[in-house]
Amino acid sequence: MKTSSLFLFIIGLFICNISNSQTNQKGFTIIPLGVKGGLDESNLSAYLVKANGAEQYICLDAGTIYAGLQKATLSNYFGPLHDATEIQKKFINSYFISHGHLDHTAGLVMNSPGDSFKKNIYAIPSVIEVLKSSQFSSKSWSNFANEGDKPIIGKYQYQYLVPEKEIEVNSAGVSVTPFVLSHVKPYESTAFLVRNQSDYLLYLGDTGPDEVEHSSQLENLWNHIAPLIQKKQLKSIFIEVSFSNKVADASLYGHLTPNWLMREMNKLYLLAGDHLKEVSIMVTHMKPCVNCETNIKEDLQKANSLGLKLYFPKQGEIINQ
Amino acid sequence: MKTSSLFLFIIGLFICNISNSQTNQKGFTIIPLGVKGGLDESNLSAYLVKANGAEQYICLDAGTIYAGLQKATLSNYFGPLHDATEIQKKFINSYFISHGHLDHTAGLVMNSPGDSFKKNIYAIPSVIEVLKSSQFSSKSWSNFANEGDKPIIGKYQYQYLVPEKEIEVNSAGVSVTPFVLSHVKPYESTAFLVRNQSDYLLYLGDTGPDEVEHSSQLENLWNHIAPLIQKKQLKSIFIEVSFSNKVADASLYGHLTPNWLMREMNKLYLLAGDHLKEVSIMVTHMKPCVNCETNIKEDLQKANSLGLKLYFPKQGEIINQ
Repeated sequence: MKTSSLFLFIIGLFICNISNSQTNQKGFTIIPLGVKGGLDESNLSAYLVKANGAEQYICLDAGTIYAGLQKATLSNYFGPLHDATEIQKKFINSYFISHGHLDHTAGLVMNSPGDSFKKNIYAIPSVIEVLKSSQFSSKSWSNFANEGDKPIIGKYQYQYLVPEKEIEVNSAGVSVTPFVLSHVKPYESTAFLVRNQSDYLLYLGDTGPDEVEHSSQLENLWNHIAPLIQKKQLKSIFIEVSFSNKVADASLYGHLTPNWLMREMNKLYLLAGDHLKEVSIMVTHMKPCVNCETNIKEDLQKANSLGLKLYFPKQGEIINQ
Repeated sequence: MKTSSLFLFIIGLFICNISNSQTNQKGFTIIPLGVKGGLDESNLSAYLVKANGAEQYICLDAGTIYAGLQKATLSNYFGPLHDATEIQKKFINSYFISHGHLDHTAGLVMNSPGDSFKKNIYAIPSVIEVLKSSQFSSKSWSNFANEGDKPIIGKYQYQYLVPEKEIEVNSAGVSVTPFVLSHVKPYESTAFLVRNQSDYLLYLGDTGPDEVEHSSQLENLWNHIAPLIQKKQLKSIFIEVSFSNKVADASLYGHLTPNWLMREMNKLYLLAGDHLKEVSIMVTHMKPCVNCETNIKEDLQKANSLGLKLYFPKQGEIINQ
């Protein structure tokens, strides 16, 4: 091999290494920064996710950033750094926002002054429209993004996601495919299918059941992920259960109960088969109130005739998948 | 006295008692639900205030409600109630919002589903416009107020405040007079002068110094409250100091530093005289970052040539004035 060919070969290997997302480890590291379904400002939906071994995290939803990072620092996940703002600057690469409700966005907006420049906010167009018109606006805050009200600070770049089209986030070692969900029609929410090589993780923003929403968005999503379950590639599903079974369908406001979750899981089981029982079902977004979480957990246990593996993520407690 | 006259006399006494705001105690009870100037979602500007002896509180700004009430319950301020939502329902009578930035409103918006019906949101028109168009909207949340996007849930009634015109909130035993502040011109913020009989408390939302804002709003406010200080009726001033003196005027974004606070206090001293030294100056809205609060406190001590009584309210710790 000539010197020039050897040089090209080495360059090729180097490029190949970069495109392999800077990590050859399988699976995911997840740090929940907030897990509750509203009310408690100190603990609202936000999940840091990266490929095992990658440098930085993507942040799936951003209800609570600062208070979640403060809790996570107690376990030294971020080395010597203990200031929430410094960790956000260095370790959060980009934000994926499922929908525009404040319990999924307020942490991003209110922590924007301390964050570093040139980060991406990924969302489907209808969600970016909410951020642009109502939150990173001159009324509710300042415009730290790159479109909308002047003055434009331009710290964040909106990246318009195309449903079912995968995009890459190299420094977190992952690629992400968005799927549209229905959260009181016609209001759109999003599920993010996160991939590290051949391993997958699915995170759903707020969603009602197809039957109540008069929608087929969940059915479409289950059709997409069923083959991944059959091939044992899907490690976990983060999905909301906001209310206990006591809440009537007419009062769901685009959310799931334990019974509705299990009806949807039964549909998925028909498509994916027994391997669904090996997927970790991470229950998110329980609305806090007196005995509510206890009731939801009891209802889930009763409704879990499939014997699914149910987990309840806790703020600041690392999950390895 | 005839029986009918006696009856009318008793009715008259009863009405008089109600119009005397249901308490004959002087001074105020204050419970800070959040004290920081941004970033930390668990501890953002919100102050419960009532006349001593009154049943319910008004809430001055509402950045953090739930997490603040949870902290306050640790001290049993609300009797046997320990659930934040139940306390909010029962003990918060109404909300006074100084301006539309999310660190002063997010707690109100995100806790609206659990709150009780028929409460008032008091604000000047430009602030109500922000709430209506961007927060209690169908994009960022649901419309729990009584004007704006449909469907209108109507749990809250907007009450348009007229600058410098006092309104009464009987169940909290107080009356409130709003004054417009400048928070990066032309964005408006508000100061609320709260009165219980002849006792006063002044709370300022975010504000820049007059000189930087090219405004005379603070000068106007000082002119109004100087006579109250001279008559020893003003008990405390809650005022923001967001940054240390290291932050340049061009980067203040409508906030005060220790030096700017003291320049404004010197102007007030020229109008009000020595009794200003008897007023409690409650420093609010310090932006959290590494050493920032320590730096602000040190800067304040150095700049306090007047010898003012400076205090730093803490979340969930009751203040009696």
